[in-house]
Amino acid sequence: MGKRTFIFFEIGVVHNDFDRPVQGDLIRRERSQLIIDPQYEKGLFGLSPGQDLLVVFLFHRAPEGDIALKQHPRGDKDRPPRGVFALRSPHRPNPIGVTKVVIESIEDNTLVVRGLDALNGSPILDLKIAGDGSGQE
Amino acid sequence: MGKRTFIFFEIGVVHNDFDRPVQGDLIRRERSQLIIDPQYEKGLFGLSPGQDLLVVFLFHRAPEGDIALKQHPRGDKDRPPRGVFALRSPHRPNPIGVTKVVIESIEDNTLVVRGLDALNGSPILDLKIAGDGSGQE
Repeated sequence: MGKRTFIFFEIGVVHNDFDRPVQGDLIRRERSQLIIDPQYEKGLFGLSPGQDLLVVFLFHRAPEGDIALKQHPRGDKDRPPRGVFALRSPHRPNPIGVTKVVIESIEDNTLVVRGLDALNGSPILDLKIAGDGSGQE
Repeated sequence: MGKRTFIFFEIGVVHNDFDRPVQGDLIRRERSQLIIDPQYEKGLFGLSPGQDLLVVFLFHRAPEGDIALKQHPRGDKDRPPRGVFALRSPHRPNPIGVTKVVIESIEDNTLVVRGLDALNGSPILDLKIAGDGSGQE
């Protein structure tokens, strides 16, 4: 299988109070700002407070290099290792995070959301209406 | 805002009967195979039939070039345009698809799933246990 590669770019950046890796639960309880590059602001048209949104972002603080394909859940060595694709660990072959958040407010190119588990400065790759796809558009 | 870029690579490929773009609903009803590169097979350890899985893939048939930031939902010109981030259209600044599927079976490096809306040959970028992240690991 020839391994194809693809280049993506940030469409915005996450702002919050979490500069260093902590358990995602702690970040999720607090608000995060999604600052979208003004050139993409029109792409937010139709989003409104209260809606669920999927945030696709980069785990930019995950170490580069070899990834363990089996990992202890949440790094807890008392728990048996599982495959990385059966986990949401940031240490992944492609360090892409996908988290469902709730929109609290939108003003110009800035969304305030709750439920995100991305660190401050995380590059945002995409936003999309949440759902399993069925009936979504 | 300096626009950072990132390189990802395929960890596997989608196989199904849909070679040409059709409404996602049609694909979702059928089975798709996820053929994972054997070098990542260990990362599947712990996944089992019946589980929900998020598939992160590339819309590899989406046209390159300028993206309309407002689009008619499902291309239906009778419906008012919305921002691309309020849609799940494949025509996105970063053409990343995220769809929740159900695992039907796993054998070695091949998963059979239902609910995917990716075309045949779509590069797979990541798999992860579905959920909003809360309580997930």
